[in-house]
Amino acid sequence: MSLDNLIDGRAIAKEVHAETEARVAALKADGVEPCLVFIRVGEDPASRVYVGMKERTAAKLGIRSETTVLPEDTPEAELLELLEKLNADDSVHGVLVQAPLPGHIDETKVFSTVSPGKDIDGFHPVNVGKLMLGEGGGFVPCTPGGVHELLIRSGVPVEGAKVVVLGRGNIVGKPMTAILCQKDKHANATVTLCHSRSRDVAEHCRRADILVAAMGVADFVKADMCKPGATVIDVGVNRVDDTAAEKGYRLVGDVDFAAVQPIAGKITPNPGGVGPMTIAMLMRNTVRAAEQQTGKGNPTI
Amino acid sequence: MSLDNLIDGRAIAKEVHAETEARVAALKADGVEPCLVFIRVGEDPASRVYVGMKERTAAKLGIRSETTVLPEDTPEAELLELLEKLNADDSVHGVLVQAPLPGHIDETKVFSTVSPGKDIDGFHPVNVGKLMLGEGGGFVPCTPGGVHELLIRSGVPVEGAKVVVLGRGNIVGKPMTAILCQKDKHANATVTLCHSRSRDVAEHCRRADILVAAMGVADFVKADMCKPGATVIDVGVNRVDDTAAEKGYRLVGDVDFAAVQPIAGKITPNPGGVGPMTIAMLMRNTVRAAEQQTGKGNPTI
Repeated sequence: MSLDNLIDGRAIAKEVHAETEARVAALKADGVEPCLVFIRVGEDPASRVYVGMKERTAAKLGIRSETTVLPEDTPEAELLELLEKLNADDSVHGVLVQAPLPGHIDETKVFSTVSPGKDIDGFHPVNVGKLMLGEGGGFVPCTPGGVHELLIRSGVPVEGAKVVVLGRGNIVGKPMTAILCQKDKHANATVTLCHSRSRDVAEHCRRADILVAAMGVADFVKADMCKPGATVIDVGVNRVDDTAAEKGYRLVGDVDFAAVQPIAGKITPNPGGVGPMTIAMLMRNTVRAAEQQTGKGNPTI
Repeated sequence: MSLDNLIDGRAIAKEVHAETEARVAALKADGVEPCLVFIRVGEDPASRVYVGMKERTAAKLGIRSETTVLPEDTPEAELLELLEKLNADDSVHGVLVQAPLPGHIDETKVFSTVSPGKDIDGFHPVNVGKLMLGEGGGFVPCTPGGVHELLIRSGVPVEGAKVVVLGRGNIVGKPMTAILCQKDKHANATVTLCHSRSRDVAEHCRRADILVAAMGVADFVKADMCKPGATVIDVGVNRVDDTAAEKGYRLVGDVDFAAVQPIAGKITPNPGGVGPMTIAMLMRNTVRAAEQQTGKGNPTI
C-alpha cells in the first residue's frame, strides 16, 4: 500500500510556524513581545494536555505565554472579571479559555466576553459573523482554518469543488462551511453540511471531491463513502476502549484510515494531520493579534 | 393547471402581522411605543419604494416610524454619527439603513455601527455570528427569516430535508443556510449552498426537497431542475426589459414559475410569496427589539 497520498500536517505546520517565527522576530525588533494568556478551569486531563502543547509551541516560536489555572468551583463572575482585566491589559495580545468548562459556567457568555481583537480562538460572535460575511479582519477558528491551510498548501483544488462537511459543531463544521463557501480564490466551493439528522449521508459523501469529517464518531467514514481520488480530511479525535493499550484506550479519527486511504486521492493521517495545524493557526492568530493591536511588526511576511 | 400548491405569502404575512399587532398592543399597554427609524441616503428609486412600504406597514401595526433622508453626498462620518445618536436614544428601538448606499460609504462599516440590539435587519456581525452559532437572542435577517416562517407555517417538513440554496449573498443565501442547518426542530436540514462558481447546479437542484432560489438571475430555475414534489421558494426580484410594460420593464423572480409550478409540491408565487414576509419579519424584529430593550410587553404572544 502506497502512502504517497498522505497530507503531512506536521510538515505543513512547520512551514506555518516558520512564517510565524519571522513575524514574531519582526514584532520583537519593533519592541513588541507577543503574549498569549491561557486560562484553564479545573483539572480536565485533556485540557491539561492541550494547554501544555500550546504553551510549548508558543515558547518555541518566541511567543510569551502565561497560564492561569482556576479551581473547578470558580464562580462564573470571577472568570468574566479576569477576562475583562486581560481585555484591558495592553501587554496581552491573545486570550484563550480552554474548553470544556465546568457545567456551572456558561461557555457562550465566556467566549463572548473575550475582546474580539484578542479572541485568537475565533469563537466570539463578532468573529464568527465576520467570517460568515466574508468581511476579513476577524479571527478564523483554528481547526477549520488549519484544514483550509492544509488544502491550499497541498495543492488540493478548492474552487468549484464539491465539499461535504460531516458535523455541524461551532468549533469545526460550521466555520469550515463558512470558510469554503466564500467568494475567494481559495474557496468558492459548493459545500454540503451533513450532521446527525441528515439522511443519505453516505450518498452525499460519495459525491464529494473533498470530505471533511468532524462529527466525532470513530471510524465513521468507510471505503464505500469515498469517491475514488477524493481528498479526505480527518478532524476527529475519539477515544475507543483498548485493553491492549497502556491507558486502556486509544485515539482514533472519524475516518477508517486503513480502508479509505487506498481509495482517496489525498488523505490526512490522524494523528499527524489536522492536529498540528490547529496549534499552528493559533500561534499565527496570536501574532496577528499582536500586530493588529500594536500596529507593529511585519504582517506581510 | 391547478394552483393549489401555492404558498400564499400574503396570507401568512397577515398571520404574522396579527401576532405582531398583539405584541404592539401589549407594549403600549405597558407605556412603550415601539419606534423604528429608517435612514435613506440619496434618492435611489427602489429604496424609496421599499422604505415607503415599510413605513406604511409599521403605521398599520401601530409602530411609530421616522424616516431620515440624507443627501447623496453625505459624508460617511456624518451617517455614522447619526447612527451613534440613534443607538443612544432610548425612544428608538430599531434602526434600518436602507441599502444600497452611495459608493463612497462603506456599507460594512455602517451595518456594524448600528447597535446589535437595534439591528432589526440582522446584518451586524454579532447577529450573524449568533445566528451561525445557534445562540439565539440575536436578530435574524428578515428575508431568510421570512422564508423559514413560510416553510414552517406551510407545513413543509424541514427536519432532515435536503435543501439547496442558490446564491450566497449576505442578505439571503448565507443566513438561510445558517438558519436551516441548526440543531432545531424547525431546522436540522442538510443544506447545500450553490453559487456562481458551483458546478453541476442543476444536478444539485434536482436532489433538493426544498429549493431556495436567491441568486438574482431571472427565471434561472427551470422545470428540469426541480424534483417532482419539491418545495420551491423564489426570493429573486429581477428587472427584465419589457417594452409592452408601462415602465419599460417587469419584475420576475429566479424561478420560471410557469414551468416549475406544475412539478413542484409547493411553490411561492412571485410577487406575493417571500416579499410580504420580509416586511412581516422586519416588524416582528422591531417589536422584539422594543421588548428586549424595555423589558415590557408580552414577548410570549
